[in-house]
Amino acid sequence: MKKALAPGATIGIFGSGQLGRMLSVAASQLGLKTHIYSDTSGPAFDVAAKSIIGSYDDSDAVLAFASDVDVVSYEFENVPLGAADTASKAAPLRPGTKALAVSQDRLDEKTFVASLGIPVAPFAKIDNGHDLGVALETVGTPSILKTRRLGYDGKGQARLQSPLEAETALQALNGQPAILEGFVAFDLELSILAVRGVDGSVAFYDVPHNTHRNGILFTSAVPAPVPDAVIQEAREIARTIAEALDYVGVLAVEFFYLSSAPARGRLVVNEMAPRVHNSGHWTLDACLVSQFENHIRAIAGWPLGPTDRHSDAVMTNLIGDEIHDWGTLAKRPDAAVHVYGKATARPGRKMGHWTAVRPKSRG
Amino acid sequence: MKKALAPGATIGIFGSGQLGRMLSVAASQLGLKTHIYSDTSGPAFDVAAKSIIGSYDDSDAVLAFASDVDVVSYEFENVPLGAADTASKAAPLRPGTKALAVSQDRLDEKTFVASLGIPVAPFAKIDNGHDLGVALETVGTPSILKTRRLGYDGKGQARLQSPLEAETALQALNGQPAILEGFVAFDLELSILAVRGVDGSVAFYDVPHNTHRNGILFTSAVPAPVPDAVIQEAREIARTIAEALDYVGVLAVEFFYLSSAPARGRLVVNEMAPRVHNSGHWTLDACLVSQFENHIRAIAGWPLGPTDRHSDAVMTNLIGDEIHDWGTLAKRPDAAVHVYGKATARPGRKMGHWTAVRPKSRG
Repeated sequence: MKKALAPGATIGIFGSGQLGRMLSVAASQLGLKTHIYSDTSGPAFDVAAKSIIGSYDDSDAVLAFASDVDVVSYEFENVPLGAADTASKAAPLRPGTKALAVSQDRLDEKTFVASLGIPVAPFAKIDNGHDLGVALETVGTPSILKTRRLGYDGKGQARLQSPLEAETALQALNGQPAILEGFVAFDLELSILAVRGVDGSVAFYDVPHNTHRNGILFTSAVPAPVPDAVIQEAREIARTIAEALDYVGVLAVEFFYLSSAPARGRLVVNEMAPRVHNSGHWTLDACLVSQFENHIRAIAGWPLGPTDRHSDAVMTNLIGDEIHDWGTLAKRPDAAVHVYGKATARPGRKMGHWTAVRPKSRG
Repeated sequence: MKKALAPGATIGIFGSGQLGRMLSVAASQLGLKTHIYSDTSGPAFDVAAKSIIGSYDDSDAVLAFASDVDVVSYEFENVPLGAADTASKAAPLRPGTKALAVSQDRLDEKTFVASLGIPVAPFAKIDNGHDLGVALETVGTPSILKTRRLGYDGKGQARLQSPLEAETALQALNGQPAILEGFVAFDLELSILAVRGVDGSVAFYDVPHNTHRNGILFTSAVPAPVPDAVIQEAREIARTIAEALDYVGVLAVEFFYLSSAPARGRLVVNEMAPRVHNSGHWTLDACLVSQFENHIRAIAGWPLGPTDRHSDAVMTNLIGDEIHDWGTLAKRPDAAVHVYGKATARPGRKMGHWTAVRPKSRG
């Protein structure tokens, strides 16, 4: 597919969660249909032209899904590579397998980002107690032991305050391959949403200031209280990563910001995600073209849409029971409410978000 | 249903066109599902949890549809009253049957609006040649002979430049009950989108200035070049109509604007529509909460959302082959493109629209 997908074409998406749902809605605005493939039913099914429940290991089903669409994308970076490979035989996979492979493994991701000359937290590969002992000498404490694969929103992680906690932390991971990451004494957490088109053009949304609760994103606010030079640096880092991956679509990069570090060390990459990202949800209400629409535009070969914000915004996640505040939030004259339509409000589950906006202040 | 519909509830919509599609997308943002009922497949089917093809005369099918949802609404005012009545036995119908009945018949609509003391164009009931002869004496020419029922975007209408054209015009209507409307020498065409909640609260969007081509809406621009007092008058007229109908949902009222008429005659109601309206599509890109979301909020018993615009906007319809400009329009840095996903670009068919925005100027 070299030309743009014309209206009427179909986009296949792996994953049936809220990101797939919002991608599907964005596709509909452009006259594009979506087919959703997932191993579980989910909120994206309610707004898709076709929904398929199948195992990611079922290569016949995956191939049939991909053969029925014009391009395949995904809402989560843990799509099994076998499924991604199978799909890419029938339709272009965007972003491609390289982005997926790199971001599925924390060690590979950190190694890749560091190889581009981009600052990352100190890290070491941990396969056993010996590795951990050695790594604690170089990386030090406090530090965080994380499984290399899977795990999100703080799951599969153990913080080490002292080397004495090494054995307990290692046991908690049950022998899974791991990575030890040095703790970065940051001032703020930031992120950037970049989008890269099939023609190599790149655009960037404003950089939000993010806060977390219990390892889960809590708020994202634009503009972030950082100098313009920092935003420029974030853009260059995202551009470097996107180009190295020959990336197509929306790419999220999360940063630690150290205000008093030397210029090249003020932004340390925490992690990246080869997809639309929670810290970009404010773009739905503060930009003419959201991260979701720009992801669809990019993977469909369309021109990228404008990324500037028309309003300042603070996005707040609604986790678990907080979703029951929808009625109160809907009364706010300055806010948009987004409910993902998930059946059960389990603790820690992202159920929705709301975005307060006000006239644009600067930048 | 006195309480608001909680997320997870289902909204039934009669009609599968672009308005149903955009209503369905808006519902999804609030965590609400939609079921679409229509006698033909259409673009709303691509973004609905359930799609039903059935005749509006099939009362069993209509009843089954309505029994499966929590509230029923519609995207077009020509839903047969029998279907509306049947549906309302199983779920609240919003807006209600009265709004539907009045707006299905041009004579009833004009009589109703005039009965509220609101200026309308001179009109007369036409059942035969005698009626037309008498009416031409009072209403005069130029005037427009229109069928009382059905017809939209200029269909089912004949303009009379002189009484000599009476016979030809009448024959063109094939004996259908008709109405003769006096021609109003207006300066501008305006409209207003009002939304009324189940609690009787009313909110208004900004008044667009509308232009037409070949009887079809061409552009809607906000702000309209009219004094604030005119906007206030438009709001009062819409409020009066909505309250008289005990209306729930979005109501569109179209006006002729006569700049030099006395205050009470500057706005003449042309027609109304008990639904979201093409002249409100700019709210998707220039307001935090669009007409579609506010219609869903209203019929679901939610608090109404903010209606103020954050940007100035000019919406332009893409009719027939104009939809093929999507690629060029998608390159504009100031515009959002909306493609309805209809299979065939027939002449005169509304295929999409685009909205150019710029920072808010005034008001």
